[in-house]
Amino acid sequence: MVKSSRKLDDLYKIRHSLAHLLATVALKIDPKAKFGVGPVIENGFYYDILFSKKIDENILQDLENGIKELIKANIKFEKKEISLKSAKNLFKKLKQPFKIELLNDLQKYGTTDYDEIIEIKTKKKKPKKIKKVTIYKSGDFIDLCEGGHVKRSGEIPLDGFKLVKIAGAYWRGNENNPMLTRIYGIAFKTKEELENYLKLQEEIEKRDHRKLGEELGLFTTNPLIGAGLILWLPKGGIIRQIIQDFVIETYKNNGYQLVFTPHIAKETLFETSGHLSFYKENMYSPIDIENEKYYLKPMNCPFHLMIYKNSPKSYRDLPIRYAELGTVYRYERSGTLSGLTRVRGFTQDDGHILCTREQLEEEILNCVNLVKYVLEKFGFKEFFVELSIWNPAKKKDYLGSEKDWRFAINALKKAIEKTGWEYKIMKGEAAFYGPKIDIKVKDVLGRTWQISTIQLDFNLPKRFDITYVDKDGKAKTPFMIHRALLGSIERFFGLLIENYGGDFPLWLAPIQIVILPINDKHMDYAKKILYKLKDNFRVEIWEPDETLSKRILKAEKEKIPYMIIIGDKEISENKISVRKHKEGDLGDLPFEKFEEILNSEVFNRDHI
Amino acid sequence: MVKSSRKLDDLYKIRHSLAHLLATVALKIDPKAKFGVGPVIENGFYYDILFSKKIDENILQDLENGIKELIKANIKFEKKEISLKSAKNLFKKLKQPFKIELLNDLQKYGTTDYDEIIEIKTKKKKPKKIKKVTIYKSGDFIDLCEGGHVKRSGEIPLDGFKLVKIAGAYWRGNENNPMLTRIYGIAFKTKEELENYLKLQEEIEKRDHRKLGEELGLFTTNPLIGAGLILWLPKGGIIRQIIQDFVIETYKNNGYQLVFTPHIAKETLFETSGHLSFYKENMYSPIDIENEKYYLKPMNCPFHLMIYKNSPKSYRDLPIRYAELGTVYRYERSGTLSGLTRVRGFTQDDGHILCTREQLEEEILNCVNLVKYVLEKFGFKEFFVELSIWNPAKKKDYLGSEKDWRFAINALKKAIEKTGWEYKIMKGEAAFYGPKIDIKVKDVLGRTWQISTIQLDFNLPKRFDITYVDKDGKAKTPFMIHRALLGSIERFFGLLIENYGGDFPLWLAPIQIVILPINDKHMDYAKKILYKLKDNFRVEIWEPDETLSKRILKAEKEKIPYMIIIGDKEISENKISVRKHKEGDLGDLPFEKFEEILNSEVFNRDHI
Repeated sequence: MVKSSRKLDDLYKIRHSLAHLLATVALKIDPKAKFGVGPVIENGFYYDILFSKKIDENILQDLENGIKELIKANIKFEKKEISLKSAKNLFKKLKQPFKIELLNDLQKYGTTDYDEIIEIKTKKKKPKKIKKVTIYKSGDFIDLCEGGHVKRSGEIPLDGFKLVKIAGAYWRGNENNPMLTRIYGIAFKTKEELENYLKLQEEIEKRDHRKLGEELGLFTTNPLIGAGLILWLPKGGIIRQIIQDFVIETYKNNGYQLVFTPHIAKETLFETSGHLSFYKENMYSPIDIENEKYYLKPMNCPFHLMIYKNSPKSYRDLPIRYAELGTVYRYERSGTLSGLTRVRGFTQDDGHILCTREQLEEEILNCVNLVKYVLEKFGFKEFFVELSIWNPAKKKDYLGSEKDWRFAINALKKAIEKTGWEYKIMKGEAAFYGPKIDIKVKDVLGRTWQISTIQLDFNLPKRFDITYVDKDGKAKTPFMIHRALLGSIERFFGLLIENYGGDFPLWLAPIQIVILPINDKHMDYAKKILYKLKDNFRVEIWEPDETLSKRILKAEKEKIPYMIIIGDKEISENKISVRKHKEGDLGDLPFEKFEEILNSEVFNRDHI
Repeated sequence: MVKSSRKLDDLYKIRHSLAHLLATVALKIDPKAKFGVGPVIENGFYYDILFSKKIDENILQDLENGIKELIKANIKFEKKEISLKSAKNLFKKLKQPFKIELLNDLQKYGTTDYDEIIEIKTKKKKPKKIKKVTIYKSGDFIDLCEGGHVKRSGEIPLDGFKLVKIAGAYWRGNENNPMLTRIYGIAFKTKEELENYLKLQEEIEKRDHRKLGEELGLFTTNPLIGAGLILWLPKGGIIRQIIQDFVIETYKNNGYQLVFTPHIAKETLFETSGHLSFYKENMYSPIDIENEKYYLKPMNCPFHLMIYKNSPKSYRDLPIRYAELGTVYRYERSGTLSGLTRVRGFTQDDGHILCTREQLEEEILNCVNLVKYVLEKFGFKEFFVELSIWNPAKKKDYLGSEKDWRFAINALKKAIEKTGWEYKIMKGEAAFYGPKIDIKVKDVLGRTWQISTIQLDFNLPKRFDITYVDKDGKAKTPFMIHRALLGSIERFFGLLIENYGGDFPLWLAPIQIVILPINDKHMDYAKKILYKLKDNFRVEIWEPDETLSKRILKAEKEKIPYMIIIGDKEISENKISVRKHKEGDLGDLPFEKFEEILNSEVFNRDHI
């Protein structure tokens, strides 16, 4: 039984057939087993089974061996079309209640898909009439199934698959139903593909920012405080501070004005901005202050526009570029929260630019260049750029004049093209209030992350009656750009952790250097070195109350970029012995030489 | 009629008599005037009068002249004691309804004080029986009055007083009553004292941070966002950023670890911390998230303790010093909100230190030294230090052992004494959870501002079960210190604005230097100078589309520390002409010489 949205390519057939073979072996091991469903999923397949006896992870090997035997035996997948009624009789005889439940649904609703069933129940859809179903037999196992199989099991590559884990899963996802055992497998056409996939998975797991965040003491959450609300621990805090210092320096060097705005505002602000009509489901419930409603801000833009409105503006004042590291709060269901990537409160490196028509193209180019500059400093080299434009066939769905849309889209295009980036045009993907550029980066594992956005807005300036007095003395509406270079600092930090695998480059590392005197008589020399480094670097002495090798191991585990080892030899030769994280001994160096290396690495923000 | 809490010193008598003389003259000008009350207030007096004709500020001079004539005439203040009944008849004859209302209250409640009357009405207090009242006659004016006057008006210094303003005031502060005209006067014993006071008032008004904040574009609030929620405008924002950079640098150099925590947390956190029992009236109403209550944080401490608890701690880890620029939200009634000093959201430069008993004294000393270091950098030289301790007679009112209290108070004392500061011991002024040091600074006008606090806490570590493993392997509770150097950054900025009168020193000034080319042909040279300065300074060119004198005037008004004027002479001599704000022309200088001055001023954070 698979959903009807099947793709019948070779790999799909292999994975689907493996799910049936898995069930065939399970039935052999436990003849009283009851079978749920066994669909194909990304990279593999699973089968949900109710075993009559307690099983554990050890079953995976038995099942895998059994499947391999069936592949070698080159058994047939036999298809039969039978009436729904005979199918029900068959599965009654086989004592397979879940299959019967599915058949009942097919009979009543013409589908086993829950969403479709609900649509039929609420009369949004008419049930299909189904009289015949197909069943597939492989070995002793018979399944209710729409098909998509290899003809014989010998077509399945013997060493291209692996059963990877078992998990609990309620029958049909409903917690009132029995809990089945879900057995996951992955499958590819070749052994190499399988191994590459497994290696990648291992790497992904090792680099998981939630795991590293805990191991390296970077961040945490706490049930007393609430899910999705991040506590930046000291080692994460110092990295955040460095990131913030870097972006704020970059803002200042690029003509941005720093502003600070509160985290709550009256409902009047969000009524005016429209957030309470088109963004309410992302906002938290209001706070009552003296009988007025205040909301946690989901965005900084309305605040920046109130700053703009604080004094009259003329064309001479434009472009105005406001920037803030503004912490916003957006509703996410607790079930969807995860690490630093799905949170309830996060800090945007948020900027808003108000400019004239003549300035628009250059301002967008500045934004694109700034994105490139900043992301490259964090070691990203590959960018995927999407330009979301309107659907010109549905002009009425969009705010703003056709002239402005064409002008803005053209300006966005030109800016991207000047950067030399390739880009995809996403027709109809623009928001109703303006076109935008989304910039994704590729991490070291080849995964893409959506990071930066440059978004035109024809809506908010109108809503807030934002104007400037032009040369001709007339009040005009400026163009408005929202832009975030890093997006959410929390999410960006999550990406950094995974991209570096916790091995932060020197300029970001929480502890940059650890000095390890071999024993007590080397402490004085160690302190001298500390004293020379401590004004410019984050450096610690780890005293010799543990063996040197233990301390080296600990420093490796904490991923500290450099170790300085001080012993008799170093003191007598007036040198230091340097070890580099993951690379090992760099040999003895004069202190000044090492200091040069450090300075150059930090200054260049090297990614070694 | 004055309240019974009168102080009968000479100055009091002068001010009180002036109120009567004011009424005497008012009656002469407007014989149908009805009189309310005329009490002594700080620095002077007022009288509330219902005039029968429209009056304006011009009356002040007439009244003042009339009073002076009465002083010269050396008239008598005649006192008479009469029965309450005859008093009522007298004021009926005089057609003074407000005085009759007061007499009625005296008859019924034995007082004219609203609070007392309410206590009597709600039976919390018994009315006094009053049969006789005193009246005072000065010229033709007769007043119901408890006394406290000079004998003859000639005792009042002729040039020690001044009528300063008129304002509307509802009779007895109730908006359902008629609006009277309140005429304010100030009075001192000598002309010099009066003039000093007026000068100080003028200076205070000129330096009012609300006024300067608007004039200089530093901060604002907006009714759409809500009162007491500060928007930092670009010029205030850059100063805030500089202040933040400075304190964060100071934290890092003093062994603090930077952390970041969210602005909301579940009620469970504030139940555990106790804030929901002893601090609830300062907290805002909860936000509902998936049927749980979340609160805006009024303090950062519980969050820092959760960070401490994130991993087990040993004596080797202590002292731990967490620091955060944490924005907190505390309830204030809208009526009490004012500028940056009484707000609803503000950012604390908040630190929490967890340490052993042996470390406590040094940690407190570090805090005190840090306060001194930071506040001196902002130009403060005079400090007022208060050590709030418990009342040892009421030990049961306090948490923590007697041993710990004695130890902590002693440590606080020793730390202050090492700094050489004088201090006042405030017995019984400590919080129930620990003793503290409060540090106030004196501003240039001689006013004191409460800024820094160093507070011991015997409560929170217990509530959160905060421990460390000591050398003996046993879990012990560390000492906890809360400390804020600047207190609220908003309030501190308010103080800075008033203390500098908006003339920020070079290191804080939003625009440090403005370059003024005399005409277009000097633009190239101006740009060269800009280019040399712009990496290290906040510098602008103001183009010659206005006359030089207009631009100089504007730069003075914006309080920009330095102007560079470029003309033919400067270009031919390869120099720059420098003007300093408020000081004027510094003459022609080689650029390098000027750059040296700038660098040294910024580096030393000079307060010129």
